[in-house]
Formats: sequence, structure tokens, C-alpha cells
Amino acid sequence: MKSYIVGVGMTKFEKPESRDWQYWDMAKEAGEAALADAGVAYEDVQQVPVGYCFQASTAGQRAVYELGLTGVPVYNVNNNCATGSSALMLARQFVESGVNDCVLALGFEKMQRGALGGGADGGDFKTSPVARHYGIMAARHGFEMSPPTAQIFGDAAREHMEKYGTTPAQLAAVGAKNHRHSVNNPYAQFQDAYTVDEVLAAKTIHQPLTKLQCSPTSDGAAAAVVVSERFVEERGLGDKAVEITAQAMTTDTEESFASGSCIDVVGQPMSREAARQVYAASGLGPEDLDVIELHDCFSINELLTYEALGLCAPGESGKLVESGATTYGGRWVVNPSGGLISKGHPLGATGIAQAAELTWQLRGTAGARQVEGARVGLAHNIGLGGAAVVTLLRRP
Amino acid sequence: MKSYIVGVGMTKFEKPESRDWQYWDMAKEAGEAALADAGVAYEDVQQVPVGYCFQASTAGQRAVYELGLTGVPVYNVNNNCATGSSALMLARQFVESGVNDCVLALGFEKMQRGALGGGADGGDFKTSPVARHYGIMAARHGFEMSPPTAQIFGDAAREHMEKYGTTPAQLAAVGAKNHRHSVNNPYAQFQDAYTVDEVLAAKTIHQPLTKLQCSPTSDGAAAAVVVSERFVEERGLGDKAVEITAQAMTTDTEESFASGSCIDVVGQPMSREAARQVYAASGLGPEDLDVIELHDCFSINELLTYEALGLCAPGESGKLVESGATTYGGRWVVNPSGGLISKGHPLGATGIAQAAELTWQLRGTAGARQVEGARVGLAHNIGLGGAAVVTLLRRP
Repeated sequence: MKSYIVGVGMTKFEKPESRDWQYWDMAKEAGEAALADAGVAYEDVQQVPVGYCFQASTAGQRAVYELGLTGVPVYNVNNNCATGSSALMLARQFVESGVNDCVLALGFEKMQRGALGGGADGGDFKTSPVARHYGIMAARHGFEMSPPTAQIFGDAAREHMEKYGTTPAQLAAVGAKNHRHSVNNPYAQFQDAYTVDEVLAAKTIHQPLTKLQCSPTSDGAAAAVVVSERFVEERGLGDKAVEITAQAMTTDTEESFASGSCIDVVGQPMSREAARQVYAASGLGPEDLDVIELHDCFSINELLTYEALGLCAPGESGKLVESGATTYGGRWVVNPSGGLISKGHPLGATGIAQAAELTWQLRGTAGARQVEGARVGLAHNIGLGGAAVVTLLRRP
Repeated sequence: MKSYIVGVGMTKFEKPESRDWQYWDMAKEAGEAALADAGVAYEDVQQVPVGYCFQASTAGQRAVYELGLTGVPVYNVNNNCATGSSALMLARQFVESGVNDCVLALGFEKMQRGALGGGADGGDFKTSPVARHYGIMAARHGFEMSPPTAQIFGDAAREHMEKYGTTPAQLAAVGAKNHRHSVNNPYAQFQDAYTVDEVLAAKTIHQPLTKLQCSPTSDGAAAAVVVSERFVEERGLGDKAVEITAQAMTTDTEESFASGSCIDVVGQPMSREAARQVYAASGLGPEDLDVIELHDCFSINELLTYEALGLCAPGESGKLVESGATTYGGRWVVNPSGGLISKGHPLGATGIAQAAELTWQLRGTAGARQVEGARVGLAHNIGLGGAAVVTLLRRP
């Protein structure tokens, strides 16, 4: 059975501690917005998968109870940075399999100090699952293993530069593009444009990545109402509905570790395989896409994902962004929202916020950042550890 | 479509720090045992819901990768003490809905210090979701809010005593029964019998609950292979298969908080509603059950659950356990494994370990603790915060 997104909502993403709210406040704001957008009452919701990484167990219930006390099942799910899309994928499976007609996917994060890799227990990076990935490479190459995510992606960027001649300016072009896009997004944590030179001149986080090429720490929430075809028809929601045409989650395979490549360790093979699966399931390909929200946790990952999604050949991604093919006026608009780099990246919310942006784009209601004539959108969300989720959305 | 458990496995549950293992070691041991029991290769597994509360995000992948690197979706789920059954419920939905033919549900916990209510972030009880439940009652009754789970259940026990005349000896009889059952369970953390007097004389944890009426802190893992009817037939697994006849998850409703009763706050209404749903779905009732694994985190909760499952009328549960109706030779055998009190309670594993015990019982392979002629079993797993999962299993 087909599934549709009929309502989305999100909070503005914010720098932690900049707003006086708890995770249940942000979840309520996003959840109520999504239900209002759909014109659906919480009492219609049959199950609620909730995504977050940093809060206590059953924080999902604590949040969802703000919307109502109907006693329906709540699942708290996490998959590092792919947490939001993991909740969305459960929602879709509940609906497409015929178990439910109306499911709310909710994601939020009130982020805490400490390395991302340490995960939900705020624990030691060295014993975290992500460390296993990096540890394999570290052992081979004699790296220090203490530093977290920025180093892993920085290493992947240097590998891409050495292997394909990718330049610092090409990496910086990703940051400049996404910051520029976010100027029109009231939900974005940052809304400031920067030139490529300004991005290059920003503080270095880990060579070659500067601060304006890295996603910040963020608080925020997002929600989506996922329903069956029958529900769309019965409630007359056709005008709002965006079809979830295909969706796939992949995890690491031997390929992730066997090659000795940092590009593989940060998940390009997972992304490539997830894209292959949704293209196969839908009969669509990269040439059919109009608008893409992808996981630019660091500028290098946007480039790696261009290649994984088949927007260009391996190694050509630096040239692709430089050509303007992935911004307004180009072949695709990638990260019209500003992406993780400028919109922000509350782990549990990101994957659902990507779907919210695409829903607005495919409805033609994205205002000043509307991608003209957008009919097919793709969301890509990845977490080290790992999980990659690719979702293909279409205006019916 | 119907779903079946065709393989189960678990580690012995252990006191934390008593064995030199990491969570992935225990998960591997349980997962391999379940696959071997089913005669199924990991390569046949199509999705893996993983339950745990205390480890980092994507710890599920870290554990599952020990079984193979096939790239299939892994979902990390948590629901406090009902975490294991939440993973099992996802597995069942994946299979019953026709999405998958073979799913592995895996649960583990390497428990950490600190109040349970603090949850996955090891955080402050006062800001945890559980505190919201207790906080409502605390505000009404002028209790101190600092102490965690044992106080909440102790308060419920005192309420039961005041309301129905339940005695300390009746509460202690639960502990004595479950410790006695565990003598025959090599997987149990404790395997020592105690008299009711010995249980009464043990150290008081929170009035009226003594140490031998409380589940301990435990490490351990459990796994179950859940498959479709087609898979059972194609692989010739009929002899091993136990049918998941019905299953329901409920969360809190207004009833949980409205009455001013601690019995309601600790989840009796959730349990009652989940039982009602599985009885309605299966056409079976308490009179059809032979063997029950239920959530005796504290002795009082076993009594509350007798009432929620309809084994007796409200208030009659103390007399029921004292009558011997819930042990070998009685109407039902409740917690033949020793229950949480004596088998142990690693949060992510408990709900799946209950299903493992029932699978052995319904196959007639439970050895010295076999319940003669058992054909129908019920598992009950509850987490404050909250979630209650009731699962009805049947020998086909």
C-alpha cells in the first residue's frame, strides 16, 4: 500500500541554551504544527515512533503526552544522526504494511555537551560504536583515535583531495551555497550568506574543514503525519499529500571497512546502496530528481553524497558544486533549506525536517526558497555507526 | 499474516562487573544461540530491531555486526523496562504486515549506576520522564520526590495493603515463589530458595518491600527469531515454531494520573488495557492460560498484574499467591523462570527473555522447570514512562 505525508511541522532550530525550552516543549510545537498542517486530530494517530539520541528512555512518551493521552504505542528509536529518518521509516512501514492508517513520526533533540560519537550515554568516544569504525582505520594508518566526528570527515576530505584533486575552494563552495540558501529559511539556525573566500577564511575545525563547512550543535524538533491512501481519500487530503514513493535503510557492510578508505568508513557505500534500492523500487533515477535535502554534516559529505546518489561520477563532485549545478538555476537544488550546515542539526529532528522541507517544496509552498516546478524530491540522512536512509518523495 | 518464534537464545543474566564482557559479547552470545536454535543463518535476517537503554546510539549495530555485515536495517529502540518487548513488537509487526519473512529481535543491557528513572542519559531523576508520573503524585501527597523506582512501587504496595488488606507475608510470598522457581533455571542470576520468613527478614529497600522482593541490577542479552508462516513452511520449522497469537502495546492514559492512586501511576491501567486487547484479538482469556511470565520488578507488581490480567478480582491478588494458584501444581505457573526478581532484569533483554522462557515451555523443553502440558503462554513487560506490552504465545 502507498503512504503519504499529509502534514509536517518543525521548530526553528536553535543554538543550545539560547531558548528556554525543554525537549517536550519543542516536540509539542512541532507535533501540533504537523497535526494542524494535516488537519488531523491527535486522536486519529495510531502509533508514534519517536526519534532522539540524548534524552532519557521514554522521553518520547513524555513528549507525546503533551499532544494527548490516548494510550497508543510509542517507540523510542535512535540511530545517531539518522535517527529522525529511522522514525520516519518505521512510520512508513506501519502504514504501507496496512497495520495503520495514520501514524505520527516525531523527532527532537536537546543536545548535550560532548562528542557526538559518545552517543546517548554521553560516554567515552573510545568505547562508542563509532569508534569501532574509526578505530579500524586508525589502527591501519597510525592515526590518533581520540578525536570525534570532525576528524573522521576531515580525513575523508583529505583523501578525496589526494585521490581526485578536489580543492579547498570546492569544499568551501558547499558551505557558501548552503549558508546562502538558508537566508530564506526562517527555521534555520543561521541565516547569513558568506562568500567562498569567507568560508575558507573561517576557523579551521579539522583540516581542511572550516567552521562554516560544519553543522553546528542544535536544539529543535520536527514532525510528520504519515497516512494511507484510504485515509487521504476519506479525509480529502489530496491537495496536501506528498507520496513516499520509495524508502530504504542500509547499514555497514564489509565494503565499509575492507578498502582502507576513510570515504568508505564515513558511509559512502551505505548511501550508494540505499540510493540504488530506492531507484530500483521506484523506477526513477537521479535525472528525475528536482530537489534534494542531503546530509551535509560536513561539506565533504555533501560531495560524497552527490557521487553516492549518482548526480555525478566518483571524484567529480567538487566540480559539480563549483559549476552551480546544485543550486537555484542549476540541474538540481540541493539543500534549499540550508542543510545541516546552516539550518542546524538536532540529531533526532534532522531526518524529519528534511522531509518537511521537501513536502513544502513539492507542494509549491516553500516561499522565497521555492524550487520552481519541483515534482520529485529525495532526502538523504546518514548516521555513523551506522545507518543511511534515503527517501524518495513525489507530488502525486 | 501470522508470525512465529522459531528460535530463542539468551545469556545467563549476571550481576554487573561479575563477568568480563562488553555488550556486544553478550548480544553475540544470545543472537548466535537464537539463530542456531532456529537453524537460520544471519544472512536470512531482513531487519533487526534492537532494544537497550544504557548504551550509546547505534550500539545495536555494533552488536549486530558481530553476527554479520549484511547491511540490513537496524533500529535501536528503548522503552525503559519494556524495551525488550518493544523490539519484539516491532519484529512481529514487520512479519505480520508482510514486510519481512525473517526478523531478529535482539535485546541487551550492560547496566550502569544510577537511578533507573534517569534513563539512557544517566541523568537527573528529577527531569526524567518517570519523574513526571511520580511528580504528579508527589505533589498531591507531599512525598519527597528524590528517590526512584523502589519508592514508587513501595508506595503502591502500601496503598494496596491499606485498600485491600494485603499483608506483608503475601507480598513476600511472591519473592519466595520466584526465588524457588529460579533454582531450576541455569540462566537465572540467583538460584537460591528462600522461605517467606526469610524474604520478610531481608533488608528493607522501601517499606514494605525487602531486598528479596526486588529485581536486581543485571547484565545480559536475549534474542528471538520471528518469521512468517511461509518461512516456517519453506524451512520445515513447524516443530520449533511457537505462534505469536496476539500482542499489544499500551501507554499511559488519563486514567494513569487522574485517580490519585499510586497503583495507577505504576501502570496497572496500562497492563489491564494491553491484556484486554490481546484477549479480544485472540478470543482467549485468563482461563485459557497455562504459563505466564510477568513483570515482577517488585513483588507488588506481580500482584497488580494478576489483577490486570484477570487472574483474580481487584484486591484478591495477595490471597491468590498465598493459595498456591500461581506456582507448580496450581491453576497457572507464573514466572517459572524466576521472574525479574530472581532471574534478573537487564532492561533491554527482559522482554525477549520472557518470550524465550515461554518458547521453551510451550515446546516442552524447559527441563526441570517444565510446566506440564503448557499450550498457551502470556508475557507481560512494563516500563514506567510508560509502555506495557502483553504477548500471547501458543503451541500450534
